[in-house]
Amino acid sequence: MTFRASAAFTEKWDHFDFEVADGVATVTLNRPEKLNALTFDSYADLRDLLAELPHRGDARVLVISGQGRGFCSGGDVEEIIGELRKMAPAQLLEFTRMTGAVVKALRECPLPVIAAVNGIAAGAGSVIALASDFRLLARNAAFAFLFTKVGLAGADMGSAYLLPRLVGLGRATELLILGDKVDSATAERIGLATRVVDDLAGEAAALARRLADGPALAYSTTKVLLTRELDMDLGSAIELEAITQALLMKSDDHAEFYAAWAAGRAPLWTGR
Amino acid sequence: MTFRASAAFTEKWDHFDFEVADGVATVTLNRPEKLNALTFDSYADLRDLLAELPHRGDARVLVISGQGRGFCSGGDVEEIIGELRKMAPAQLLEFTRMTGAVVKALRECPLPVIAAVNGIAAGAGSVIALASDFRLLARNAAFAFLFTKVGLAGADMGSAYLLPRLVGLGRATELLILGDKVDSATAERIGLATRVVDDLAGEAAALARRLADGPALAYSTTKVLLTRELDMDLGSAIELEAITQALLMKSDDHAEFYAAWAAGRAPLWTGR
Amino acid sequence: MTFRASAAFTEKWDHFDFEVADGVATVTLNRPEKLNALTFDSYADLRDLLAELPHRGDARVLVISGQGRGFCSGGDVEEIIGELRKMAPAQLLEFTRMTGAVVKALRECPLPVIAAVNGIAAGAGSVIALASDFRLLARNAAFAFLFTKVGLAGADMGSAYLLPRLVGLGRATELLILGDKVDSATAERIGLATRVVDDLAGEAAALARRLADGPALAYSTTKVLLTRELDMDLGSAIELEAITQALLMKSDDHAEFYAAWAAGRAPLWTGR
Repeated sequence: MTFRASAAFTEKWDHFDFEVADGVATVTLNRPEKLNALTFDSYADLRDLLAELPHRGDARVLVISGQGRGFCSGGDVEEIIGELRKMAPAQLLEFTRMTGAVVKALRECPLPVIAAVNGIAAGAGSVIALASDFRLLARNAAFAFLFTKVGLAGADMGSAYLLPRLVGLGRATELLILGDKVDSATAERIGLATRVVDDLAGEAAALARRLADGPALAYSTTKVLLTRELDMDLGSAIELEAITQALLMKSDDHAEFYAAWAAGRAPLWTGR
Repeated sequence: MTFRASAAFTEKWDHFDFEVADGVATVTLNRPEKLNALTFDSYADLRDLLAELPHRGDARVLVISGQGRGFCSGGDVEEIIGELRKMAPAQLLEFTRMTGAVVKALRECPLPVIAAVNGIAAGAGSVIALASDFRLLARNAAFAFLFTKVGLAGADMGSAYLLPRLVGLGRATELLILGDKVDSATAERIGLATRVVDDLAGEAAALARRLADGPALAYSTTKVLLTRELDMDLGSAIELEAITQALLMKSDDHAEFYAAWAAGRAPLWTGR
Repeated sequence: MTFRASAAFTEKWDHFDFEVADGVATVTLNRPEKLNALTFDSYADLRDLLAELPHRGDARVLVISGQGRGFCSGGDVEEIIGELRKMAPAQLLEFTRMTGAVVKALRECPLPVIAAVNGIAAGAGSVIALASDFRLLARNAAFAFLFTKVGLAGADMGSAYLLPRLVGLGRATELLILGDKVDSATAERIGLATRVVDDLAGEAAALARRLADGPALAYSTTKVLLTRELDMDLGSAIELEAITQALLMKSDDHAEFYAAWAAGRAPLWTGR
C-alpha cells in the first residue's frame, strides 16, 4: 500500500489460483492432472507474485498448496525439459535464473510462508517447499529431490545451499546425490518437515490464522533475520539483532504487550 | 593471573551467587521467587564476569544454573520491559547491545560453559543456555524462545544465528517465530539439549569436574575453534586447525599423554 | 586422461591396497593388526591419490574401507606421536598441513567418496570418514573423535568445521571436546552415519555400483556444489546453481534422459 510508484499490482494470476482473505494469501497450484507440474508461466508468476505480495498490504502470511493428489511434481517433462532441449545457453541461463529467483524471493519475502504439502513434492516442487518457512505435510506427502534422475545437478534453485542448513551436510548429500523419495515420517525425523498432520487443510489454516492475527512485524523480522544471519558472522549477527530489537521496542505491538500485561488482558496485535 | 594491567578483578558480584572451587566457577541466578528473571544489573554482571573469568586463572570451566524451580525466565517484565518503555532509541540500543554482549562473551570465552538447566529457560534465559557449550537438562526443564509473544523479534541476543546452527533452519524457524515451549525430551531429540538427566546437580558437577581435571588447553582450543570456524570457509578452517594443532603438539599435556602411554599409566593433566 | 602434462600417474601405492574396477576405485587400509593406524606414509599416499584420482579417468567413485576389525584407528601412537615429540614447529606444521590436505582433497574431490566403516573410526580415521560423502556403518562400527584424550585440540583436520555442519553445533561440541565413542545407532540418529547396515561389503559395493553406473557429471557437480555452498551466501549460491544447471542442460546425460523418457525406456548414462 505504501511506497508504490508507477507499477500496478497484477489483477489476475493466470497460472495458479490466488486469493487473499483476512490477511492470509493462498497460492494453489491448479494442474492436478499433472500433479501440479510447473510450466514456464507458473515459475514466472510465482516470481512476480512474491515480489508484489509484501507491497499489497493485505497479506501477512502466504500459504502454498496443490490441488488434488500432489503438491508439485516440479518442471513438466514435456512442456519444460522438451523445450529446454531446443534452447541456446543464454536462454537456458535465463530459465535457471528465473527458477532460482523464485527461491530467492521465497527466502527474502518478509512474510512467513507455509508450504502445505498435500502429496508428492518433487524436483522444483521440493525446493519450493524447502524454501518456505513452515512445511506441514500430509501423512502421504513425500519429498523427492530427483534432479540427478533426469541427468541434472542435485544442486538446483539453491537446494545445495538450503538443504544442508536444514538437515545437515551428510543427509543433504544423500538426498541430493541419490534423489530418492523421502517419506513424511523421515522428513519429520530429520527436520525437513515442520510437522506431519492428519488434517492438512485445517492445520495449515490454523497456523496461517495464528500468523496473520499475531504480531506480524515481530514474525516478519524474525524470518528476515533468520535468512540473513545464515550468511553472517557471530559478531555482526549479534549487532544486527541488537539494532533490530531496539527498533521493535518502539513498535505498537510491543507497547500493546506491556499494556495488556499490566491490565491483565490478552494483547490485541496490530502487526505494527 | 598473567597479562593483567591496572584493572582489578571484581571482589563481589552482587546480582548472582558466584564461587570458584577446585577449578570450577559457578554462577547461580538467585531470584527464585521470580524464576530468576534477569535485571539490568544481572545482565551487566554476566557481561563483566565473562570478560574477567578467563584472566583470573583459577577457573577452567563455568557452570550456570538457577535457584529454585526455574533456570532463568528472561528479562523481568516489570523491571525491564516497563523501564524500556520509557527509553529513547540510543538507550534501547545500549541495552540490546549489552544483552548481545553476554552471548558474544559466552561464545568467545575460552572456557567451556555448562548450562545446568533446572527448569524453564525462557527468553534471554533460553539464549544464555543456547550460547553455552553443554546444556544438561532436568527432566522438567524446558526452553521457550518467547520473544514474539511480547511483540519483539524472535531474533534476540544472537538466537537467529545460533539456533539454526544447532537444530537446523527449519526447526529454528518454528521455535523462534512461534515462541512455543520445547520440553526436555524434544530438546534432546533435536540436538538442543546435550543430555536430559535425572540428577542434574550431580551430573553437572561430574561434567564440570571432568573438564576441570582434564587437558584444559585442549578443551579450550576446541571450543574456541568451534566458535570461529562457524564463520570460516573450509580451506581457512583447515589451515587454522593445522597451525593450532602444531602448537598443541608442543604442549605439556600432549607430552604427558605420550609419557603416560609409554609408561602404561594414566596421564596427569596440568592444562598447559 | 585429459589435460595431463609432465607428471605421471603413480604406478603403485605402497601404503594401502588400491584398485580400480569398472569405475569403482577402492582404498583398503591394510594394517589390520594395528586397526589400520595411519603412518606418515599413508597420510601422504592418501593426499597424493586424491589429487591424481580425478584425472585418471577410470574411476567415478571412491570407496575407503579397512581390513580386519577396524576402519582406521588414526595416527599410530608409536610411529606418529612418538616421532612428533622430536620435531620442531616447522616440521610439526608440515605434518598437520599434510593431514589437513587429505581432508581438503576429500571434500574437493569431484568424485563421490564412500566410507565403508567396518569397525572403529578413531582420531584421523573418524575425520576421514567425516569428510567422505557417504558413511555406511557396520553395526559394530563406532566413531571416536578422541583428540583431547591425547592432549590435543578436538579441532583436527577440519573436524571443528565439518562436524557442526553435519550434526549441529551442540552435538559437535560434545563429541569434539569430550572425545567419547559414538556407537553406530547414535551416529545414524544424529546424521553422522548415512546408514547402518548388516552386509557392509555388499551395501557399499551396491552404492558404489549405482554411483559409477549413473549420471556421473550430475553426481559430481552436486558434490562439488555442496562443498562450495557451505561457504557461500544465498544469492551467490543460487547464481552458481543457475549457471551450473544451464551447463548440465547441455550434457549428454540430460539429453539421454529426455530421449529415454520419450521412448519409454531406461536411460543409458555415459556420465558426460
